[in-house]
Amino acid sequence: MKITHLLMALVFATCCFAQENVNFGQQKEIVSPEIHADNSVTFRMVAPDAKKVQIESDFLPPSGFAKGTADFKKDADGIWTFTSDKLASELYSYQFIIDGIKVHDPNNAFLIRDVSTIVNVFIIGNGKADDYKTKDVPHGTVTRRWYDSPTLKMSRRVTIYTPPGYETSNEKYPTLYLMHGAGGDEEAWIALGRTAQIIDNLIAEKKARPMLVVMTNGNANQTAAPGESSAAWTKPIFIQPDIWSGNTEKAYPDVIKFVESNYRVKKEKASRAIAGLSMGGMHSLTISANNPDTFGYVGVFSSAQLQPKDAKGDVYQNFDQKLKTQKEKGFKLYWIAIGNTDFLFKQSNEFRAKLDAMKFPYKYMESQGGHTWSNWRDYLTEFAPMLFK
Amino acid sequence: MKITHLLMALVFATCCFAQENVNFGQQKEIVSPEIHADNSVTFRMVAPDAKKVQIESDFLPPSGFAKGTADFKKDADGIWTFTSDKLASELYSYQFIIDGIKVHDPNNAFLIRDVSTIVNVFIIGNGKADDYKTKDVPHGTVTRRWYDSPTLKMSRRVTIYTPPGYETSNEKYPTLYLMHGAGGDEEAWIALGRTAQIIDNLIAEKKARPMLVVMTNGNANQTAAPGESSAAWTKPIFIQPDIWSGNTEKAYPDVIKFVESNYRVKKEKASRAIAGLSMGGMHSLTISANNPDTFGYVGVFSSAQLQPKDAKGDVYQNFDQKLKTQKEKGFKLYWIAIGNTDFLFKQSNEFRAKLDAMKFPYKYMESQGGHTWSNWRDYLTEFAPMLFK
Repeated sequence: MKITHLLMALVFATCCFAQENVNFGQQKEIVSPEIHADNSVTFRMVAPDAKKVQIESDFLPPSGFAKGTADFKKDADGIWTFTSDKLASELYSYQFIIDGIKVHDPNNAFLIRDVSTIVNVFIIGNGKADDYKTKDVPHGTVTRRWYDSPTLKMSRRVTIYTPPGYETSNEKYPTLYLMHGAGGDEEAWIALGRTAQIIDNLIAEKKARPMLVVMTNGNANQTAAPGESSAAWTKPIFIQPDIWSGNTEKAYPDVIKFVESNYRVKKEKASRAIAGLSMGGMHSLTISANNPDTFGYVGVFSSAQLQPKDAKGDVYQNFDQKLKTQKEKGFKLYWIAIGNTDFLFKQSNEFRAKLDAMKFPYKYMESQGGHTWSNWRDYLTEFAPMLFK
Repeated sequence: MKITHLLMALVFATCCFAQENVNFGQQKEIVSPEIHADNSVTFRMVAPDAKKVQIESDFLPPSGFAKGTADFKKDADGIWTFTSDKLASELYSYQFIIDGIKVHDPNNAFLIRDVSTIVNVFIIGNGKADDYKTKDVPHGTVTRRWYDSPTLKMSRRVTIYTPPGYETSNEKYPTLYLMHGAGGDEEAWIALGRTAQIIDNLIAEKKARPMLVVMTNGNANQTAAPGESSAAWTKPIFIQPDIWSGNTEKAYPDVIKFVESNYRVKKEKASRAIAGLSMGGMHSLTISANNPDTFGYVGVFSSAQLQPKDAKGDVYQNFDQKLKTQKEKGFKLYWIAIGNTDFLFKQSNEFRAKLDAMKFPYKYMESQGGHTWSNWRDYLTEFAPMLFK
C-alpha cells in the first residue's frame, strides 16, 4: 500500500514485462516499420551477429512466382536498416530473412496468418488503402457464431458482419455471402480482406448500402478455421482433400437458411449476393448456377469454372444447362474480375468466351496484377457499391 | 477448362503457394511442435547455417524473471531438434532463439499477441487444459461490437460472449464483466485467457450457469485494441499514461448500461459479477466499491488496491469508507486469488489484512506460481462455477 506511483510503475515494468512475454532482451527501443511522410518506409532489425538481413515483401518487384527481396545495411550499433521507395497506398505484408531464416519483425505486433504463414502487415494511406483502416465512422459488429449444417452433419463456425445500426433499427437488410479461396477459412476475409473496415467505410461514404456480410468456411471437411475447431492444431494446408467433392456448394443452402432464420434480412433474390475469390469464386458461380432463384448478384473474383471434368459432385453435373437456366431466370449483376497476370487468366477468358457464346450477360473488370489479396480487396471495394441498388 | 484435376492442383500448389505467402523456400516438411502420446513435445527448426538454436518457454524452469531456455541439437540434415520432458496439462507459449534472435516457430501457425510480443502457443491436454480446447459441445457466440461511452466521449470496442442458446431462447441471463491487466485490451481474455472455450466447456459440463461475459477495454485512453482503432499501428505499450486517472472505473457504468439496454440480461445485483486480473483486479475492486449496489460477485485476480496514494481520480477517494459501505450493503461473493510467487503477493496480503480488520467477508485462494496467464485461466475456471448460484 505504501508503494509510490513511480515504484509501482517500475515494478509493473520490470516484473510484468518479463512475466507477460514482453521482449526483455532487446536493449535499444527501435521502431519498425516507420512510415515516413512521403510514404517511404524504414524497417529496422537488431541483429549484431547476423551476416545478412533481407526483407521479403509484396511491395518489392517479384522474382518469378516468389516475392521480391531487398538487402538491409548494418550500422555501427548492429542495427540493420532498409528504407523502401515511396509506396503506393496499399496493405503490404512482409517477413525478414536473417541469414536465410524467415522471421517476423519483432517490433511490429501486427501480423496476419495466410494459410500457414504468418506475415507482418502495415498500411500505406493517402489512397485506396485508407478504406482498409479503421476510421472514426460508425462501426458494424463482427460476430463468430456456430450454425447447424444438416447437409454436412456438422456444427460450423461462421463470421458475420452486421452493419452499423443493425441492432437498434427495425429495418431489414440485404446480405452478401462472401467466400474465401483455397487455404482460407471464415477468418480470411476479415483478416486479409479487411472486410469490416471496407464495408464500414463504404457505408459511411454512402457508396454502399448497409448490408450483412456472411463469411463462411468453404472447406466442407472443416467445422471451423484451424485452431478454432476441435481438430488438432496442425499446420493449415492449402488444398483440402475433398476440394472437388461439391459438398461446400451442396451444403450452402444450410447457411442461407440459418442467416434468414436468425437475422433481420430481406429474403428475396434481389437482396442476396454471393461472391468469392479463387476457389471461392468457383463456389459462388457453382452455387448461384445451382440455385438460380436465390442470388440477384454474383461476384467471381480471380476465378472461373475450375472443377476437373471428372468431378463427381452433383453440383457440377449438367453445368452448361444450369448456366442457361440461370441466364433465363435472370439476375441483377454477374460480375467477373481478374488480374491480367493471374495464373487463372486463361481459364477466366475461356469461361467468359463460353458465357459470350450463350449470351449470358455479365460485367467484366480486368485489373493489373495477379492472384493477390491486393486485388481481392480492390474487387470487394468495387463490387459492394454495385449491390442492392 | 481442359485442365485436369492433377494439373489444377499443381497449378494451385505452385502459383498460389507463392502468391499467398506460403513458405516456399523450406524444402523439407517438418512438424513442430509435435506433441507425443506421453505429453513430451518435440520442436524442430530448419536452420542449417545457425550456430545455436534455443527455445524459450514457460514450460522450462525460469531464470530469475526471465523465462527458461533450452538448447536444440542439430542433425545431419541441418534440422535442429529439442524434445521436452513430459509436460503437465497447460497452454504453453514459446519462441525460438536463433543465434541470439528471437523468432517464432515457422511451422506453428498458432500465435497470440501478448502486449507487443508474438508468441507461439500449444496446448497439452489430458488435464486442466482440456477446458482450454474447443470441444464438440455447444458453442457460445463471440461478438466484437462498438458502444458509446458518454463519460469518455468515445465510441469503444467491446468483446461479448453470449452463451449457447442465447439467440434462440427467451431466457434472461446473468453477466460477468471481465477485465484485462496492464498491456491488455478487449482481445486479451479471449486470446490468452481462452474465455470462450473455458465458459463453453464449463456450461457443457453443467459446472457453470449460462452467462454473458463482457470483456471491456480497460485503457481509458484507447477506443479499441492496438490495430483495431483509428490510432496508428504503433507498438503496443505496457503502461498507459493515464493508468491512475480513475477514468476506466468512472466510465464503467456506461458499459453496463449498454449491455443491459442491448442484451437479454438480468438487471439485478445478484446477476452481475465483475472480475479482473492485475490492473483489471484493481479495476474490479475499485468499480465494485464505487458501485456498491451493482455487483453481487467480485473477483480480484493477482491484484490488490494498487493505486498510488496521490492518485487523483474520484473513484480512489475515501476508499476505506467505500469498502465499508460495500460490506454493509452486502454481496454474494468477494473472491481473491493470487499465486504465492506473484510480485504483488505482499500487496495482496496487505489488502486482505485491511479487509480482515474491517470484517469485510471474502474468500481467498492461494495458488502456486506468479503473475501469469496460467494462473488467470485457472482463476476463471474456479470463479465462474461459483457465480449466479
